[in-house]
This record gives sequence, C-alpha cells and structure tokens, in this order.
Amino acid sequence: MDSDLPKVLHRIAQAPMLWHALRAGYRLAPDHTIIVAGHGADAVEAAAKDYDPDAHIVLQTEQLGTAHAVGQALPLLEVFDGDVLVLYGDTPFISEETLHAMTEARRTHDVVVLGFEAADPARYGRLVTEGDDLLKIVEYKDATDDERAITLCNSGVVSADRATLAALVAEVGNGNASGEFYLTDIVGLARARGLTATVVRCPEAETLGVNSRMDLAQAEAAFQAYMRAQAMAEGVTLAAPETVFFAWDTVIGRDAEVEQNVVFGPGVTVETGARIRAFSHLEGAHVSRGAIVGPYARLRPGAELAEDVHVGNFVEVKNAVLHEGVKANHLTYIGDAEIGEKTNIGAGTITCNYDGVFKHRTVIGKNAFIGSDTMLVAPVTVGDGAMTASGSTITKDVPAGAMAIERAEMTIKEGFATKLFNMLKARKARQQN
Amino acid sequence: MDSDLPKVLHRIAQAPMLWHALRAGYRLAPDHTIIVAGHGADAVEAAAKDYDPDAHIVLQTEQLGTAHAVGQALPLLEVFDGDVLVLYGDTPFISEETLHAMTEARRTHDVVVLGFEAADPARYGRLVTEGDDLLKIVEYKDATDDERAITLCNSGVVSADRATLAALVAEVGNGNASGEFYLTDIVGLARARGLTATVVRCPEAETLGVNSRMDLAQAEAAFQAYMRAQAMAEGVTLAAPETVFFAWDTVIGRDAEVEQNVVFGPGVTVETGARIRAFSHLEGAHVSRGAIVGPYARLRPGAELAEDVHVGNFVEVKNAVLHEGVKANHLTYIGDAEIGEKTNIGAGTITCNYDGVFKHRTVIGKNAFIGSDTMLVAPVTVGDGAMTASGSTITKDVPAGAMAIERAEMTIKEGFATKLFNMLKARKARQQN
Amino acid sequence: MDSDLPKVLHRIAQAPMLWHALRAGYRLAPDHTIIVAGHGADAVEAAAKDYDPDAHIVLQTEQLGTAHAVGQALPLLEVFDGDVLVLYGDTPFISEETLHAMTEARRTHDVVVLGFEAADPARYGRLVTEGDDLLKIVEYKDATDDERAITLCNSGVVSADRATLAALVAEVGNGNASGEFYLTDIVGLARARGLTATVVRCPEAETLGVNSRMDLAQAEAAFQAYMRAQAMAEGVTLAAPETVFFAWDTVIGRDAEVEQNVVFGPGVTVETGARIRAFSHLEGAHVSRGAIVGPYARLRPGAELAEDVHVGNFVEVKNAVLHEGVKANHLTYIGDAEIGEKTNIGAGTITCNYDGVFKHRTVIGKNAFIGSDTMLVAPVTVGDGAMTASGSTITKDVPAGAMAIERAEMTIKEGFATKLFNMLKARKARQQN
Repeated sequence: MDSDLPKVLHRIAQAPMLWHALRAGYRLAPDHTIIVAGHGADAVEAAAKDYDPDAHIVLQTEQLGTAHAVGQALPLLEVFDGDVLVLYGDTPFISEETLHAMTEARRTHDVVVLGFEAADPARYGRLVTEGDDLLKIVEYKDATDDERAITLCNSGVVSADRATLAALVAEVGNGNASGEFYLTDIVGLARARGLTATVVRCPEAETLGVNSRMDLAQAEAAFQAYMRAQAMAEGVTLAAPETVFFAWDTVIGRDAEVEQNVVFGPGVTVETGARIRAFSHLEGAHVSRGAIVGPYARLRPGAELAEDVHVGNFVEVKNAVLHEGVKANHLTYIGDAEIGEKTNIGAGTITCNYDGVFKHRTVIGKNAFIGSDTMLVAPVTVGDGAMTASGSTITKDVPAGAMAIERAEMTIKEGFATKLFNMLKARKARQQN
Repeated sequence: MDSDLPKVLHRIAQAPMLWHALRAGYRLAPDHTIIVAGHGADAVEAAAKDYDPDAHIVLQTEQLGTAHAVGQALPLLEVFDGDVLVLYGDTPFISEETLHAMTEARRTHDVVVLGFEAADPARYGRLVTEGDDLLKIVEYKDATDDERAITLCNSGVVSADRATLAALVAEVGNGNASGEFYLTDIVGLARARGLTATVVRCPEAETLGVNSRMDLAQAEAAFQAYMRAQAMAEGVTLAAPETVFFAWDTVIGRDAEVEQNVVFGPGVTVETGARIRAFSHLEGAHVSRGAIVGPYARLRPGAELAEDVHVGNFVEVKNAVLHEGVKANHLTYIGDAEIGEKTNIGAGTITCNYDGVFKHRTVIGKNAFIGSDTMLVAPVTVGDGAMTASGSTITKDVPAGAMAIERAEMTIKEGFATKLFNMLKARKARQQN
Repeated sequence: MDSDLPKVLHRIAQAPMLWHALRAGYRLAPDHTIIVAGHGADAVEAAAKDYDPDAHIVLQTEQLGTAHAVGQALPLLEVFDGDVLVLYGDTPFISEETLHAMTEARRTHDVVVLGFEAADPARYGRLVTEGDDLLKIVEYKDATDDERAITLCNSGVVSADRATLAALVAEVGNGNASGEFYLTDIVGLARARGLTATVVRCPEAETLGVNSRMDLAQAEAAFQAYMRAQAMAEGVTLAAPETVFFAWDTVIGRDAEVEQNVVFGPGVTVETGARIRAFSHLEGAHVSRGAIVGPYARLRPGAELAEDVHVGNFVEVKNAVLHEGVKANHLTYIGDAEIGEKTNIGAGTITCNYDGVFKHRTVIGKNAFIGSDTMLVAPVTVGDGAMTASGSTITKDVPAGAMAIERAEMTIKEGFATKLFNMLKARKARQQN
C-alpha cells in the first residue's frame, strides 16, 4: 500500500478492512477470535479493540509466512476443541453463505480450502482436485503447464479442526525459495497423513484482496454498489445512487429519501419517511421519521433529531437532542445542547459551548424563538416560550415566556456613509496616481 | 415500489413520473386530459393539479385491469369526436416523434399499438404481425413457441378513435386466469369486427417502465444523461457532466458554465455566460448573464439575480431580487428582500425576516455597504449609499448616505484572558486528579 | 464549440487547453515557443502570457489553412538553426515519450509525422507508408479504396528542420476544393525533393482533439482518470476517486487522504498525512502535514495551513497564514490574516477585511481565543493569549493576555415573549378571518 498505516487499517465504508474481515467471521458466532498482527501491531490492536473489546491479539514479531502466522495464534487455543477458520485482514468480503458452506464441508473432510474460479488465474496458486477431493495446492511458479491450465485458484482461506490444524502447521517446513512457512503446505501434509481435503468455491469477488490504493478504491466501489442496491431494495429512494456513500453500518428506513451527494459516516440511523437532502454529511446521528436534513447539513456524533425536525443549510449539529418539530434552517452551530419541541432557531445562531478548556451545555425549552445571530454562551438555559432578540449574546438564563435582549442603542449618522466613501475613494485615487 | 407514495408520484428529475407522462401527451396538444388514478388517488390528483389545473381525474376504485381503467375515463369523453391515446404514468419517456408516428398510423388503421424490439423479450406480451397489420397481442404465458420467438413486444400504449375504443373496451371480458379486463384484448376484438390494427415501433428505452427504486434510479440516470448531452450540445460547459443534476425544466444559456456537483431543482433559468460554481444548489431561481453563483451557494425559489451579481460560499438566497452587480459572497442569508445595484453585503449578514408568525421584507438601496454580521430586522429599509457597521442589528430604517451602527463600547480588560485561562486550566487539573 | 471563448481557452483540469499543449512542448525544452492565434487572438495572448510570459504570439488574421498558420510563425525563427515541432492547441494530450520518439526519428528522416492506429479511421487523413518511410498523406475524400483501408491516421503533428519546413511550407499551394494551404502537403513535397519522411506512432488517446463541449467533457474525464490513478499510485488514499477533481498542477503527498466530493483548483499542495474531508474546495492553497480540512471547507488563494491546523465546516480561508495547530472549525471567514500557533477561532468569526474600497489585515497572536461571532474589524491586532468575548466587534487592537469585549448589558423582559407571541398570533387570526 506504500503507507505508514498498517494495510488492514485502511478503511472501506468508513471501517478498517480488519473490521470487515472480523464481521465476516462473526457470522459464524465463533467462540474465540484471535488476530495475528505483524507490522503496526499496536495500531492494529487499538483499532481491533475499538470494534471488539474481546478480540485477542497476538504479535507476529517476525514475518515468516502464513503458516508461521497461524502458528502464533494456536497456543491460545490449546484447550479448545473445535474448528479453526483462517481469514485474512485484507480480504474483507467473504460472505456468510461461503462460510456456512465451509462449515458444512468440514463434516465430510478434514481440511477445507476456499477456492474461486479466476477469470484471469495469473500467478495465483492452483487447486488440484479429483472429484470432491483437493489433492494439493501448487504455487504458480512450481506448477506444470497442465496445472497452470487449472482456473480454480486458492484464496488462502482454510478451515480445519484445531488439533489437526496445529499438528499440520507444526509440520510445515520452510525449505522453499522464499524460506517461508506456507499455510498452503498443510493440504499435502494432511493427505500424506491419510486425512481428506476439499474445496469450497465462492465467487471471485468475495476473495478480492487489497494490495494498493487502487484496489482499495475498487473494493470501496464494490461495497458501495452493494449497499446502494440493498438500500433501494429495502425501499429507500436514492435519486442518484452513485453519489451516495454509506458507512458499513448505515441503517435507513423504508420510504426515506436520500438526495444527491450525501456522505454517511459510521453510526447513522434514518427512520422511515425522513429526507436527507443534497450535500449532507451525517455521522453518529439519528434522524426520526418526517425529519428533513439539509441541503448542506452536517450532523455529527450525538445528533439526535426527533420527528419532523428540520435542519437546513450550513447547519452543524453535534451531541444535541432536537425535539419534535424543532427548526434550525440556516447557518447555525448547535453543539452540546437540548432543544425543546417546536422551538425555532434563527439563522446564524451559535451555541458557544467551549471556553477554551471546558465544554458546556445549552438547554432551550419548547416553543421558544431564538432570534437570528443569537450567541448562547453555555452553560445557559432558555425557558419554554421564551425569545431572544436577534444579535444578542445570551450569558444568563432566560425564564419561560421572557424576552432576552443584549443590544446597544442603534444610532444613525446622517451623511456619514457618503462622507466615508468619498474619503476612501479619494485615498484610493491618490494611491493610484 | 414498496412505498406509501403512489408509484406515479415518485420523481424523475424533480418531477413526478406522472408529469413526465402527461408532458409526453401534451406534445400532441390534446383537447382533454384524463388521469385514471387508483391507489392514492387524492395524492395523485393533488400532484396532477399542481402541474395542470385542467387535468380531469377519475377514480378507479377497484383495480380490475387496464381495459377497466380505460373504461373509467371514457364516460367523460362521450361527446368527444376524436382520437384517444392511452399512456401510462409509470412509462414516462415516450418521445414526441413516437406519438406523432402513432397519430400518422391512425390515418390508415383503426387501432394503433406502440411496440418495441426487445433486447431480451422475457415475459413481455408479443405482437403478432403480418406485413403492416397487427394480428393480435399474445401474453407470454399464452404464447406458442413460435410466438415466443417474436421479439416485437407490446408497450401497452394504444390509440384509437374514441367511439371505436369505447365499443371495443366494452366488449373486453375477464375470462382469464387473473380475472382482469385486459386492454390488449381490443386488438383481437377489433379484427373480429373487421377493423384494422397496426404497430408503431419505438426504441426500447422509450418504453422503460418503472417498477422498483432501482428502475427509478436507472430512469433518472437515463434522463440526466439526456439532459447533460442536450445542455452541452446547446453550448453549456459542464466540467464534469456526471456530477450535474438537472430538473426536468432547467434552462441554461450558451456559454454558461456549470462546475462539478451542482443540483438544479425545478424552475431554474440561467442566462448565457453565467457561471454556476461547484457544490451549488438552485431551485426556482433566475441567474442573469455574467452572474457568478457559488461555490456552495443555495438559491431558493424567488431568487432573482441580475447581471454580474455574485453570490458566494455558504450563502442562501430566497424570494429576493439582487440587482445588477450586487455581491453577497460569504456566509449570508438573504430572504424576502430587494437589494439595489452594486450594493455589497458583508459576510455573516442575515435578513431577519421571520418574527415567529409573520415574514417581513428587507429593502436595501443601491451602492450600499452592509457591514459584516449585520442583522437586518425586517421590515426595514436601508437607503442608497448607506452603510451599516459590522456587528450591528438594524431595527430602524437607515436613510440614504447614512451610517447605522448598533454597538456597545469596546472595553479591554488587561491580563484578564491570562487569568481566566489559568483558572480554567487549574480547574481542569484538579478534576483530572 | 459554439462558444464566444476561443476553443483553446476552454479549460481541462482548470487550465486552458492551450496550456496543456504548451506543457507538452515544454518537455522538449524548446528554445522558442510561438503561438499562432486566429479568432480571439487577444484573449489567447493574454492567457498564454499568464502561463508563459516568454511565449511569442503571432496573429493569423485570415484562416487560410494549417500550412498558412505555420507560415505565420516561421519568420520569427529565421536565424534559428534547429528543429520545429508543430503542435495544436486543441490536442492537449501528446505525451513526453511520443515527443522524444519524434525527436529520435528526426535523426534518420527529414520530416516526421505523428500517426496513430485509429479504432475507427472514419474520415481522418491516411498515412501511406512503405517500411519506415512515409510516402504521402492522403485526405479521406481523395483516398482510393485501398488507401481508405489503411488504419494508420494523421494526427497533424509534424516535425522538421526549420529551414526545410520553411522551404516546404513556402511551396504548399491551395489548389484544392477548400482553397486552403494544407500542412499535410509537405510530405509529398519533401519526397519530391528527395527528402525522407517517416511516421512515429502514438496511442490514439494522445491525439484526442476537442471539437465540442462533449469532447471537452470527455477529455476532462480522461485527464481526471489519469490524475486519480497517479495520485493513488503515489500513495494518496481516495475514498471515491470518481468524485475527486484535480487541477493540472495539484500536488498531494503520500498517506494524505482525500474524501468524497473534493474539488481542487490550480495551485494546491497538500503534504503527507493531511486529510481533505468531503465537500471541500481548495485553490491556490497549501495544506501541511497533519492538517484537517473540511468537510465543507473552502480554501482560496493564499491560504497557508501549517501543521495540524483544522479548518472545519462552512469555513472560508483566503490569503491567510494559519500557524501550527490553529483551529477554525465552524462558519467562519478568515481573509487577509495571520493567526498564531494554537489559537482557537470560535464559530461565526469574521475578519472584516473590506471597507468598501480597501482590504485590510488582521493579525492574531498565538494561544489566543477568539470567541464565537467575533467581528475583527481590520486593520486590527489581537495579542498572544488574548481573548475576545463572543458576539464582540473588535475595532481596536487587543494586547497580549487581555480580554476584549464589546457588549451591551443583557436585559430580560419577563413575560414579554408570551405577550408578543399572543399579539402576533391574534393578528394572524384576524387576517385569516
């Protein structure tokens, strides 16, 4: 990847590839999850724990090959009596159906390898089969012409009983050109012991590996295409699906509408009938039915929009609950706040939530009217049905039904603008001479 | 469609599909337009009246088939002596050429059916022809192998003389598996009476029906591709056509330029030489020659930009006339306003047009200078050549040439920031211990 | 192009096509560059000088054909003893490799013509060859059937020794149907004199000419695809490459990340590890490592962001230096300013840099805290560690460590909001009756 970031932490649909691979595995409800991390193990561990605090991480200090990597994990499973499935952090798209097929195949065979019919087999390892039996995995460089003609290729994904896998991995040697311990050798070793091996086939797209930014972009595009089709199938209207970007966990209800150029970060749920207008950006937010977001709205984590809330253009909402029917339609920042039902937030309103060190909360009641360009210096409370005068900086609590105003007297200097303009223009004329 | 919204009200290029179908029909300048609505008839009627107040709506309370639907409309035409054309609300793209070809074909045949050569005929009804004559329409399930080999398929669009159509429709029975009255039966009935029928062929794309959100997205994409090609052919520069979304009625002049990621809602006209910059959103707006809009500008209905007006980033304009040369370039909301020639609107300016119940107007003269963060509390007038001081809330009219200012005295508390920061940091340190 | 703008001034990746053609030529480090301009020569000259002040422009007052155009340039080269390469302003994508191949071919042949194997030769001129020798260029309309079967076509790009070219061009006649002087005639004339000619072949894509807005959009798309692939190959993460638009000179460092829907204008450099978030627009800006821009940030020319600067949503920065760690995250306009390390700019802050005639500078020290909605009326200075109270208009310099405040007393009118609302609602009720 030519990156300082460990490959498996590069993101697809706003989650690290590692998480996509883990999710694939979780569909089998595993007893244990062990992540073998090499380069950048600390960062990998931190990211893994973010998503699954129970995942075990083992460090592969030297990169001596795939069998060696699996060998690092097996000691943690010594008393475990079940199957081990080996997945890869950079192969994020193995489907649930495929994994169930592998589980099924394990009933009849000791070792199960996931293979795919390659459109262009190129330099993939080939799977040599006879009927249902997998005879061996041949690396391209060691393959005969006949073997190279095989199009069934090795994905690297393998399943076996823990004890079998441990025994086979322990036998793998590194007497090859690269001096690495290859997990693929276990098929030959298994058959030499009289064990059986077989292949489960999956569509090539599932085994898509990511080895460059271009691959990453293609994986992202494939995943987005899937998410968009899924959303439409579930009754979401996407005016221009190719311009909508979902996160891996975006949930959108039936008859919701998502306009052009909308980006979802992680943790968003949108209820039925809500409308996400063009150029909006949502992350960690909940949008209730009938709410309208955007255009150009940004919802950040903790934005909670109740039914029929309107959040309009150039408005940012963070860590704030907007109760039913609240309107904040123009040029506003609402952060660390709670706003009561049917309250109207005027254009240019800002919750001044930060004093340079601490963050403070703003609480506004229902049916209130916050005038344009009101600065709400938190912590501050505005009561039900209260008003603030536009242009006011509110530093004290406003009781229910009261009007708060912070404003100097407006004065008019007759002729002064004319005089000032003339002066400025004369100065400019002098400068230009 | 899996939707609470009636299918024909789902939108393409910002207008309901129904309207696209109606527009197709209007190209023939019909004497009467009758819409047969089933599910959601009230919503359909309301939408139809929005676009065409003269359209008649008839209710099909039971959905008993296409012939039955047509039968609901015919009583309204009893004294009408002319042709009836049957179109479908979910088939929005029939072209003018095709409809004229049908009109032409009616001169020589009693019944005219619109057909298309299907790339994949699948389960469409087949048109059985002999020379120019249409012998019958066979449903796929009733077709022989020979008939299934036919690729000329039925679009459902039909034309006949009103009296003929009425007589034929009255004869249609429902003695079929679904128990429905099929309009397609009229071809056989016509021929049984010794009348003639023929087929007019159109490109398959015109008969594209919409039956899912995916279909809807594809119809939208096809329509947008058409609109973009059309705009470029008419001399509009589109830097990235695939990112520009037109409404069905967008009009853009020659040598206008539309940058990346621009969305047009209904009712927009852009004159020659205007420039719509990236990330802009326009609806119900008029942009005159030489004007520059965006990036990130939002023009809402009633925005009227005269020549050489500049509306810049994070600026919203609604129901407002900006006369020649007005500049409003940053973070501004202009609503319900009129602004005179060459006036400069400072960053952060807001017309406070709403008092919680009523909307009010702001009127600004020409050559005025509105300082940054001016709140214009409407109704309010600012005269020609007047100025407002930045940060002022303007609640009274400002005469021409005057300077208006609403500002308290600025005070400086020496050392106070240092003291405050230290106090806050100390508090934080205490909290962390 | 159906445009008032000369064709070669239409832009690809934010630079006129002319500049792309010039850049191609510059890869050979030419001694002289001469632009022959016909229609719109003044505009062409101005644009050319913008990019290359040393380019010579000659005017072709009458458009008498390509040989005539070349003939206008040759007098400027009379004492020049070297090769002349003829390129076209509407053929912007000739590669460096191709031009070097032409230079190389000139060692063995007197005249070198650039040809391409056309997928669809259509009406292109055909290159008739024998071994390495180019025998003649035949216009499609004059070609025999055998010649029309040739797929090697003429790009129009030609190279020859200056004296040879001058002599050949002088010999070209206009005795053809169009009455034009064709540069292609020089091949036949050269061979008649016993000189040699040959063809250098390039991929068809390099010879792509632009003759319509559609062509222009396709050229833009091809160039963007190239730039995106290049950026990814150099270690830039593009979440959705198809939504990122580069300028011709955009430079982005390894491990930088560019999210969806980002537009780069000319003159942008982004350092390694910086993050450009969705919906951002950058032009003439420099973003240092670790900085975060956007979403919805607009950086205009002269925006200089030091390391770890954050510029957030609905923020515009123009001609301003933001030193290390500055944060300006919400709804802000910073223009003509310098802001010291770690200073925090509150939401809604505006540098009021324009008085209607002049622009003025704002200078803010380090570790300062600019409260929300602060108006900084330039010229003005805020010292290190100083604060401004939110909602203040700052018209005088603020010393280091001081707090500046411009605010009237806040007053609360108990019950007044309730009274006002009731009054307004009553008025509305009366109006509705």
